[in-house]
Amino acid sequence: MRAPQVVRDPTLPERVTIYEVAPRDGLQNESALVPVDVKAEFVQRLVAAGLPVVETTSLVHPRWVPQLADADGLLARLATDGLPPSQALPVLVPNERGLERALTAGVRHIAIFASATETFARRNLNRALDEQYAMFAPVVSRARDAGMAVRAYLSMCFGDPWEGDVPLDQVVAAGRRLLDLGADQLSLGDTIGVGTAGHVTALLGELAAAGVGPDRLALHCHDTYGQALANVLAGLRAGVTTIDASAGGLGGCPFARSATGNLATEDLVWLLDGLGVHTGVDLAALTRTSQWIARHLGRPSPSRVVQALA
Amino acid sequence: MRAPQVVRDPTLPERVTIYEVAPRDGLQNESALVPVDVKAEFVQRLVAAGLPVVETTSLVHPRWVPQLADADGLLARLATDGLPPSQALPVLVPNERGLERALTAGVRHIAIFASATETFARRNLNRALDEQYAMFAPVVSRARDAGMAVRAYLSMCFGDPWEGDVPLDQVVAAGRRLLDLGADQLSLGDTIGVGTAGHVTALLGELAAAGVGPDRLALHCHDTYGQALANVLAGLRAGVTTIDASAGGLGGCPFARSATGNLATEDLVWLLDGLGVHTGVDLAALTRTSQWIARHLGRPSPSRVVQALA
Repeated sequence: MRAPQVVRDPTLPERVTIYEVAPRDGLQNESALVPVDVKAEFVQRLVAAGLPVVETTSLVHPRWVPQLADADGLLARLATDGLPPSQALPVLVPNERGLERALTAGVRHIAIFASATETFARRNLNRALDEQYAMFAPVVSRARDAGMAVRAYLSMCFGDPWEGDVPLDQVVAAGRRLLDLGADQLSLGDTIGVGTAGHVTALLGELAAAGVGPDRLALHCHDTYGQALANVLAGLRAGVTTIDASAGGLGGCPFARSATGNLATEDLVWLLDGLGVHTGVDLAALTRTSQWIARHLGRPSPSRVVQALA
Repeated sequence: MRAPQVVRDPTLPERVTIYEVAPRDGLQNESALVPVDVKAEFVQRLVAAGLPVVETTSLVHPRWVPQLADADGLLARLATDGLPPSQALPVLVPNERGLERALTAGVRHIAIFASATETFARRNLNRALDEQYAMFAPVVSRARDAGMAVRAYLSMCFGDPWEGDVPLDQVVAAGRRLLDLGADQLSLGDTIGVGTAGHVTALLGELAAAGVGPDRLALHCHDTYGQALANVLAGLRAGVTTIDASAGGLGGCPFARSATGNLATEDLVWLLDGLGVHTGVDLAALTRTSQWIARHLGRPSPSRVVQALA
């Protein structure tokens, strides 16, 4: 069987938007350096497979993420590649310098990357938790003035490797501040994959109580402990309709060949296809794309579905 | 973090019985032949890790499953190993000959293995679907007369590799007939792992409508397409409190090193620990056991949790 039996659950949403992160969040965590031509073809193939949103790269300083040092070149390539004008191709922008580059490249969707915990804010952003908002405020404000859509990633929402448990109210407070800056969407990240389904339900409940409904939220689950799809299911039940995923599960830790990071888009599509939830994604085309990029990376995909369909 | 943050979901059961299948369902699908001493130690370690039910072996003819040709020897070993009298150690019994051997060995819990589809009944049992009940009837009847508990596995409940989709009412009818024979528990098997969460919800709903409540059911999910834990979550929501799993995910297809079969017990325990559902299982001891048996099998565990905690 190459597809699941479709059995609708009428309590779940009818449509879900898959926010594809492999070209950015996947490739930045792979040890292999991928040529810009291959990256451009990767984005084109993902678009052709029906993914409505494909985050393409990050305009971070190349010193920090050498894998994405070709970001400006990739954006120039994509601008001339004849992709549909309606296609969303967001770009991660870490600061005002990155925003300048995004404006130059004609980017229309950006994402910023914030932290829910003090330790990760200091380690990843070199800022105190409270200082990150001042850093992002002019980025969001100028992006909005330029007509861009702005997503805010909030990382470490379900646990932090240095701090351990993360209180729900701390996540809610950080999320509210990012939305108050003017972000359109908040992506709740289980950065180290430790969250479980009841935790997802509880956090979404606290956010709703604080006035942040599921229509402004996305879930970004990692499959490190195998929990990603159970967590997605809890999110769907709470009304979330944007789910982040990475084609082929790209972005497993580069230091451990077997370790898994991002939820594989194929595993997510199998779930949603079985639930009768519309995504617009062609699972066969997507799987072929993940097998193709796996050959460029020189390692097999950790996706269960890619392995099973191979 | 070596454990998930505990966030109870009050709509889920407070306790779950994990039915551990690795020594039987795991090892019978591994290509390596494991010495009987190692199997006995494997069972002892699983019991010591807190698993309340450990299926130990199958009394099938050695021609069909050479991996378990030492079943009588293993049962003799376990009988003298000083395991607690309350420990459930079921044995798979394919026919009356197997039942004779189980009675000789002093086994108190048996399992039979039936099919929900015509094709798999013919291929696995060499019987038409309707003929399997006549084959199992004397096994169940004699086992009950001897005071044994009897579980019935029902395979291919969510899809069949030859027939494709399997109608819900066909599964319900087969399950009812097995319970009517006198089985205490029905384990619903997603033998090829294609099922998704809404399908689980729908099948459990149909069974409840036919008078088979979740207290008589177990779920046996395979992680072939990454769906196992999402399916378990759907089962828990419907009130199922017995979940089958295999330590370390043992039982991946022996012909494909990367392919995955049984749900890994560790991934299940991570979910249930995070949900605050009591299982009695010590995750650290269980993970050490899976790493130990993986060395004997000469291949890494496909369990996400075992990989992440290694």
